[in-house]
Amino acid sequence: MAIEKAEVFVTSPGRNFVVLKITTTDGVTGLGDATLNGRELVAAEYLKTIAPSLIGKDEDNIEDIWQYLYKGAYWKRGPVTMAAISAVDVALWDIKGKKAGMPVYKLLGGASRKGILTYAHASGVDLPSLFDSIDMYRDLGFKATRVQYALPGIPSTYGVAGSANAQKGEGEKGVRYDYEPARRTTVPVEEVWDARTYLNTLPGVFEEVRNKYGKDLILLHDSHHRLRPIEAARFGKLLEPYDLFWMEDTTPAEENQQFLRIVREHTTTPIAIGEIINSWSDYITLIEEQLIDYVRSAVTHTGGLTHMKKLMAFAELFGVKSGFHGPTDVSPVGMAANLHLDLAIPNFGIQEYMKHSDETLEVFHTSYTFNDGYLHPGDKPGIGVEFDEKLAAKYQYQPAPLPVDRLLDGTMHEW
Amino acid sequence: MAIEKAEVFVTSPGRNFVVLKITTTDGVTGLGDATLNGRELVAAEYLKTIAPSLIGKDEDNIEDIWQYLYKGAYWKRGPVTMAAISAVDVALWDIKGKKAGMPVYKLLGGASRKGILTYAHASGVDLPSLFDSIDMYRDLGFKATRVQYALPGIPSTYGVAGSANAQKGEGEKGVRYDYEPARRTTVPVEEVWDARTYLNTLPGVFEEVRNKYGKDLILLHDSHHRLRPIEAARFGKLLEPYDLFWMEDTTPAEENQQFLRIVREHTTTPIAIGEIINSWSDYITLIEEQLIDYVRSAVTHTGGLTHMKKLMAFAELFGVKSGFHGPTDVSPVGMAANLHLDLAIPNFGIQEYMKHSDETLEVFHTSYTFNDGYLHPGDKPGIGVEFDEKLAAKYQYQPAPLPVDRLLDGTMHEW
Amino acid sequence: MAIEKAEVFVTSPGRNFVVLKITTTDGVTGLGDATLNGRELVAAEYLKTIAPSLIGKDEDNIEDIWQYLYKGAYWKRGPVTMAAISAVDVALWDIKGKKAGMPVYKLLGGASRKGILTYAHASGVDLPSLFDSIDMYRDLGFKATRVQYALPGIPSTYGVAGSANAQKGEGEKGVRYDYEPARRTTVPVEEVWDARTYLNTLPGVFEEVRNKYGKDLILLHDSHHRLRPIEAARFGKLLEPYDLFWMEDTTPAEENQQFLRIVREHTTTPIAIGEIINSWSDYITLIEEQLIDYVRSAVTHTGGLTHMKKLMAFAELFGVKSGFHGPTDVSPVGMAANLHLDLAIPNFGIQEYMKHSDETLEVFHTSYTFNDGYLHPGDKPGIGVEFDEKLAAKYQYQPAPLPVDRLLDGTMHEW
Amino acid sequence: MAIEKAEVFVTSPGRNFVVLKITTTDGVTGLGDATLNGRELVAAEYLKTIAPSLIGKDEDNIEDIWQYLYKGAYWKRGPVTMAAISAVDVALWDIKGKKAGMPVYKLLGGASRKGILTYAHASGVDLPSLFDSIDMYRDLGFKATRVQYALPGIPSTYGVAGSANAQKGEGEKGVRYDYEPARRTTVPVEEVWDARTYLNTLPGVFEEVRNKYGKDLILLHDSHHRLRPIEAARFGKLLEPYDLFWMEDTTPAEENQQFLRIVREHTTTPIAIGEIINSWSDYITLIEEQLIDYVRSAVTHTGGLTHMKKLMAFAELFGVKSGFHGPTDVSPVGMAANLHLDLAIPNFGIQEYMKHSDETLEVFHTSYTFNDGYLHPGDKPGIGVEFDEKLAAKYQYQPAPLPVDRLLDGTMHEW
Repeated sequence: MAIEKAEVFVTSPGRNFVVLKITTTDGVTGLGDATLNGRELVAAEYLKTIAPSLIGKDEDNIEDIWQYLYKGAYWKRGPVTMAAISAVDVALWDIKGKKAGMPVYKLLGGASRKGILTYAHASGVDLPSLFDSIDMYRDLGFKATRVQYALPGIPSTYGVAGSANAQKGEGEKGVRYDYEPARRTTVPVEEVWDARTYLNTLPGVFEEVRNKYGKDLILLHDSHHRLRPIEAARFGKLLEPYDLFWMEDTTPAEENQQFLRIVREHTTTPIAIGEIINSWSDYITLIEEQLIDYVRSAVTHTGGLTHMKKLMAFAELFGVKSGFHGPTDVSPVGMAANLHLDLAIPNFGIQEYMKHSDETLEVFHTSYTFNDGYLHPGDKPGIGVEFDEKLAAKYQYQPAPLPVDRLLDGTMHEW
Repeated sequence: MAIEKAEVFVTSPGRNFVVLKITTTDGVTGLGDATLNGRELVAAEYLKTIAPSLIGKDEDNIEDIWQYLYKGAYWKRGPVTMAAISAVDVALWDIKGKKAGMPVYKLLGGASRKGILTYAHASGVDLPSLFDSIDMYRDLGFKATRVQYALPGIPSTYGVAGSANAQKGEGEKGVRYDYEPARRTTVPVEEVWDARTYLNTLPGVFEEVRNKYGKDLILLHDSHHRLRPIEAARFGKLLEPYDLFWMEDTTPAEENQQFLRIVREHTTTPIAIGEIINSWSDYITLIEEQLIDYVRSAVTHTGGLTHMKKLMAFAELFGVKSGFHGPTDVSPVGMAANLHLDLAIPNFGIQEYMKHSDETLEVFHTSYTFNDGYLHPGDKPGIGVEFDEKLAAKYQYQPAPLPVDRLLDGTMHEW
Repeated sequence: MAIEKAEVFVTSPGRNFVVLKITTTDGVTGLGDATLNGRELVAAEYLKTIAPSLIGKDEDNIEDIWQYLYKGAYWKRGPVTMAAISAVDVALWDIKGKKAGMPVYKLLGGASRKGILTYAHASGVDLPSLFDSIDMYRDLGFKATRVQYALPGIPSTYGVAGSANAQKGEGEKGVRYDYEPARRTTVPVEEVWDARTYLNTLPGVFEEVRNKYGKDLILLHDSHHRLRPIEAARFGKLLEPYDLFWMEDTTPAEENQQFLRIVREHTTTPIAIGEIINSWSDYITLIEEQLIDYVRSAVTHTGGLTHMKKLMAFAELFGVKSGFHGPTDVSPVGMAANLHLDLAIPNFGIQEYMKHSDETLEVFHTSYTFNDGYLHPGDKPGIGVEFDEKLAAKYQYQPAPLPVDRLLDGTMHEW
Repeated sequence: MAIEKAEVFVTSPGRNFVVLKITTTDGVTGLGDATLNGRELVAAEYLKTIAPSLIGKDEDNIEDIWQYLYKGAYWKRGPVTMAAISAVDVALWDIKGKKAGMPVYKLLGGASRKGILTYAHASGVDLPSLFDSIDMYRDLGFKATRVQYALPGIPSTYGVAGSANAQKGEGEKGVRYDYEPARRTTVPVEEVWDARTYLNTLPGVFEEVRNKYGKDLILLHDSHHRLRPIEAARFGKLLEPYDLFWMEDTTPAEENQQFLRIVREHTTTPIAIGEIINSWSDYITLIEEQLIDYVRSAVTHTGGLTHMKKLMAFAELFGVKSGFHGPTDVSPVGMAANLHLDLAIPNFGIQEYMKHSDETLEVFHTSYTFNDGYLHPGDKPGIGVEFDEKLAAKYQYQPAPLPVDRLLDGTMHEW
């Protein structure tokens, strides 16, 4: 048997997604996700470029095809390449599961746990709205929530659903679908960042949250690459009394992995990173020096199940667990892939979870289930996602770039 | 003044190129190169995605625009992103040079030398053809040549113009235009690699070359990522008597920079790397531990002049020089950018040079000159390249992927 | 074109300055600053020694001339050499800007921000005078102030305008022109230092300042090389509740860069150093081990724009920002050079700013502007400073050494 | 008692020297050397600037005065500052010796050996002239010679007395006084360097020298900062069969001390460095990582006896010996200071020795003696040098800069 077709779809049911569908000569199909938020057409073009070289290849040889695409790209790594490879890889695992009559997690080693602990995205423009948001997620069964808070005097804050600019985006429908940063415009929205205000605000917010909810609620926070190393160190230290599960992307260590050395030596607040790291090469220092506690990559962005399984093996040896990226910029296909891996690996930590919109879920039929704070990938053969091509065709791609970020003086900053 | 237009061209005069043309509101134009060999349409799509966000920006603020594109991409780094950013950056320096009435090298600090030492690509399927090839380049004035040699019993060898598969490619016109690996097919050619044969063959070849040409000829060699670290260490040691200027891409340290620690501790043969490294983040260990002697990146692939100038400053402090990538997969625009930087930086080492085909040079009119083994960027304001859009339009893009590589047993290997 | 003249001026309008004026064969002139506080005649003599070797050199080749002066000095580095090289370098950038018709910041990459955040020098002999001083600067628009405080029982304290010895200096005109340590005497004033008193006093002062002004005011402090590493570590830790923007020159790490390892591992108070470091060689450990957060060098003392741009590129990769030295011991020419660099680099942090006296500003006509706490270099071609030679000639050099410092028992100590 | 006068003399009996003469209130005088080759007037100006602050100080408190000048300079380190401090320091030790009625070495701990092993400067434009030169020094009693050799095809080579440009200098009188690089011109002579020719030439020369003279002759060599680290590593390896006492200044590790890590890991050829390092701060990495075997600083350039004694103590702890700089650019005063230290320290290695010209020795009357390859400082109280002020006044300063160096393509290089 062999690969007969590799088709690329770009669809926009609520937000943009890139879907790869591989069909074998005996008619088995597999789906992969190459959605790269704001760069969807680039990832799709990459898939179109490599598609002809897949035809005729034995779909069973996933590792060989992975190496073919990675080493054969010549220009290795990078988000576009790794997202495209991921799509092929996940589609091939989907096919293999279907051929074996097994959910993919069983091919990855079987279930290591009953369910996948998740965390939700709570946020507030003030304490009452934050508490409402936390309460909502607790009512939905979540045992863990990320907490983001609007910075006083700053027009829009990353991760806060109700903050000014955020409400203007078309990509979201009120707080129901959390904070969606990509907006349907051609030119990125410009946001503002001020570390001083942030460092003066957040510790007090966490104090209030702990005071209200007690010790049991699992709390996380995302600094979204915006602190300098010494600021991140101070932040981690200030947060210690409030016992965070992790502080995420606290400093742009994707630029220089050594940044986290400074943070690590000053605080025991656990550290998660990797949402925009797409290759294990970029984790070497982070993991071998034990600078992190959680790997934040998504299967979609980081070379698929084949690459992520190896990365998590390396992480296991150094005591690092998973905390995969899982907002709606990962399609239901990519989310399903995350979940199969989550269930199988011994060093699972937690899974980010932001439910897709109804529009999205009409195009992607998923088998995964959410129950009392835990996800499960389901037991359908393959990854368990079906893609409604006809319906998808109705949702045309619309540019929706991520925002950019400037300091108060106009200096470009990490968003 | 501001950017008014950002147009993307894909043209194929002999081989594929991606050209960006930026026009300001007062009619000044600048050119950039985003050619990513075998991934041209992907880089072009990236440029189309970001083009709208350039409109209205002040063309003078090159650093700000660089940071806007890099930090604002969110998904940082990688060959596609960095090639696209390079194109914008070089186009803006071209514009600034024209506005200042100066060649770009004068904006970069002025000339630090009279001319730019180059090396050519000699190769042979046997010693006579190798000697012919070296003689040809010496007759052309070259003081330095890379030497590649066909492996006995292996159907095709990287870098060898006359080896079997190489002759089939449409992209080349005999040895006149050297070895061109990309072929006009949709599916990559598969080549074969055997390190044992290589290690048993090459030292003897270099012995013959030294015996024939004596001590003065500058010799280089490219292992093209194919040796394991300990093999590379052995190779470097075996080559010491033949005094190589460098051994290039001796092991795939773009995967794990630490690979070169093993090589470095065993041999004094100088080490060059970076043809496929596109960000200074990926040079940190290589440079701060002094694992390399030459940076092999091209301006085209590595974020443009703004990023490369910073990278070369970091390199200077750690005793590392330049040896920029310069085959024909860098367009004449990208080559001109290399040359302006070569002339200006204090830590220039050598420049790879493979003349573009006549077809290419009818579309791109260049001001740079080659004389007795030395290049010079010329003194026209800007980068000194003009692009004939009408003629370019006649040369339609044709897919031309780079080959892939397998070991004798079929294992995928770095090409 | 070529350099035709290189003239050295020593003038003393309020305080001593060393000015270099370079004139090209086509009559373009450029200015540089080689003022080395208390060693002005030495820097001037250095310039006179090297001036003949500049004549006839192509003014466009700034990097080559830089290397000529640095490597050609043979006896590299040191404050005198680097100040003299700076003067030549800035004068050549001034000329290049004029020839290009652009302000120098546009040659350095363009504006990366709208304005340059500055900090002022507040100080007090007691809390009321300190608060008055802070209020004065806030009224002037400053968003950030350095806070220095008189040590009880110690006759004079560095940085405190109203402290005993300070008032005797001729170089200052009351608090209007802040604290000016150099006095018009031939023999340095001797001051006294006691770390115990300092460590027992300052934290309480910062507590009072924070209590009065709240969280928003940006506060800095300068220990002026006077603490031992373990004292600096303790000091940084004691200051953490008061959220300093930085602690400056906390320990004499210009002597042994490793001193800051001890400080760094104990505190998250950000660290600034470099006022008396004049070469990137002396920053290697500080930056590559991320021991600092801000580079405090001035363009005037540290090899000019060419060297500082490279240093700041190295700093950028390791997450370090700028905080250039900017009291009145840097002439308006040097200050303008600082500002052009501040505006251009991506990793700007803050700029020290102490307005020159009216006498000084009658001799140096500047184009830079101060507005609501932010400086801007202006948009005149070059660095935007004009030097009134005739008026300058009226102000003859008068020796004005910096003070020296002793412990209570008479031991010499860093001043 | 106290310092009453501090007089600065610049004289040029054959070459330029800077002499400091300190006189105490009871009429004891001491001499110091601040000669900084090519920058004599700058060092003299520095001394004039600090002279007033010496007056009235107790001449017995040498350490206090050292710290006063060093810490009190504020702008620490650098060749100019450290040469000036050295002059004061040596003059005070000279005074102390005279007051104690002892040669200075007795104050430094007494004689640790009978005599001071020296090495001479042999060189040749071809093997016969090289052998003549070596023979001459052997006949003079030298047990050790530095060997330098003219590079074929390069017009002038550092350290080679008979090479083309060298003969044109006025500063030398034939090979009798060895190679004197400084020439009496206002603009530095430009020399040319080619590492390739050097690496291809020198090992063969050492083979010939060893073949002719056998194993006993002590051989040294000076690369004078011109090799890159990997070249120096290769050079050291190539020289191993010829058993060098040291290779000197093999790479410019004064720029980045880490450069010698690369050299050290590849060769057991001993390493000497420091001719242009003037502070122990710049030896920290070199010594604590045992990257060197010999300290090459001169007392004249490196803060005097007080600083050098501490530096050599640090060196002793890490197994490093002395090999002080001693050509004629150190005055007889500075040379005497070297010798007193050489005799006293336990970790003496070797002393460079190039006899001053007769003209020089008529102005400086020295007590040190040369006998059968060994020097001895003599036993006069103090350092044992008298300075003939009247005669000195007849020899007016004439500019005599050191050469600069360019690569074949015109790039500035370390001289």
